[in-house]
Amino acid sequence: MRIDIITVLPEIIESPFSHSIIKRAQDKGLAEIHIHNLRDYSEDKHRRVDDYSFGKGAGMVMAIQPIEKAIETLKAERDYDEIIFTTPDGGVFDQQEANKLSLKQNLIILCGHYKGIDQRIRDTYITKEISVGDFVLTGGELAAAIITDAVVRLLPGVLSDETSALTDSFQDHLLSPPVYTRPAEYKGMKVPEVLLSGNDKLVDDWKHDQAIERTKTLRPDLYKKYLGED
Amino acid sequence: MRIDIITVLPEIIESPFSHSIIKRAQDKGLAEIHIHNLRDYSEDKHRRVDDYSFGKGAGMVMAIQPIEKAIETLKAERDYDEIIFTTPDGGVFDQQEANKLSLKQNLIILCGHYKGIDQRIRDTYITKEISVGDFVLTGGELAAAIITDAVVRLLPGVLSDETSALTDSFQDHLLSPPVYTRPAEYKGMKVPEVLLSGNDKLVDDWKHDQAIERTKTLRPDLYKKYLGED
Repeated sequence: MRIDIITVLPEIIESPFSHSIIKRAQDKGLAEIHIHNLRDYSEDKHRRVDDYSFGKGAGMVMAIQPIEKAIETLKAERDYDEIIFTTPDGGVFDQQEANKLSLKQNLIILCGHYKGIDQRIRDTYITKEISVGDFVLTGGELAAAIITDAVVRLLPGVLSDETSALTDSFQDHLLSPPVYTRPAEYKGMKVPEVLLSGNDKLVDDWKHDQAIERTKTLRPDLYKKYLGED
Repeated sequence: MRIDIITVLPEIIESPFSHSIIKRAQDKGLAEIHIHNLRDYSEDKHRRVDDYSFGKGAGMVMAIQPIEKAIETLKAERDYDEIIFTTPDGGVFDQQEANKLSLKQNLIILCGHYKGIDQRIRDTYITKEISVGDFVLTGGELAAAIITDAVVRLLPGVLSDETSALTDSFQDHLLSPPVYTRPAEYKGMKVPEVLLSGNDKLVDDWKHDQAIERTKTLRPDLYKKYLGED
């Protein structure tokens, strides 16, 4: 899988991709992540990429020309399955979307910044608008990092323990059960007896019950999805 | 405002805090962000911070001792308003939560990693569990970066244009209207006439209508909140 990220602030997302599992995925040849500085595509002599918005209103807008050139340059080299724009008003990103994207070959992620991008780019080039949540960030770079992380870790061979991703929260619309590790007692705080029982059946039942209970209590909306009511 | 972030992978979130608005906020003395390596608090001779989980199941669990020591060390130095744990099963982060947190003085954010942290830490120390969305990440570091970014940009004086944050998406449960910048025509793509009219009243009305229309179409759930029905 190849992910091309277009941003005005490439330095912001250097570190998340230079460490941890994303780094490992790249070292293993399972994922290629390329970060492109939008300014490199600007035909303005000062490499500007933004301009005042039409109509009054605070904030700058990312202009068409550099984005068009960046996208066209990439598209000339290969086909892309999706050209994603990270924006607070996109479709809300979730595990099912991460699963879907993990099956694609080539993705472009364009990071929003300032007050947004010229709408004409959205109308013409963007195939998928994604929001990572109902909050506003300085820019779309952290959103791009999140999408990349959530997707790349699903690629076969990336996680060292293959079963690990399958037991994550959300894969079956259930939250994970609580987890405990040694010592069994720490300053008076004990782990539940059943986990020390050595009885796999009892442990599995307890974990399932806890997952159900936590989901019901903490996320009734998810629980409906689990029951297939939503 | 002071934010202390406790993580097993400090290098992952170095770059988001060393650039852009978060960096500027720190330079201006408006925010202090301290990243703590959890391993520095481990009493294990190999500085281990994780261990096998009780009961069978894939994945490692963050142990009690290093987390307890890290939190107690910080708490001995100052009072904290919240001790936040980033976890997929926490309360879903949104702009209203960002607004609330931006009024606090001192926050700890503990980043989840591996299969999670020993439940006893959650029961004893954590005052607020936050999820940035219904998806699973390699670790809570990017979630911590997102919370920090969304909160710090709201601090008075951080954004250069004071009105900029107030007209963001979500502040009034409406998505932003589309934005456009020069040129008014680019390869046949034109900006809407009204934005070139110079009539502020018409422009404002158009923007409001577009915000309503987009929210209705793209996010009927948010639109209900706007109407006060949710």
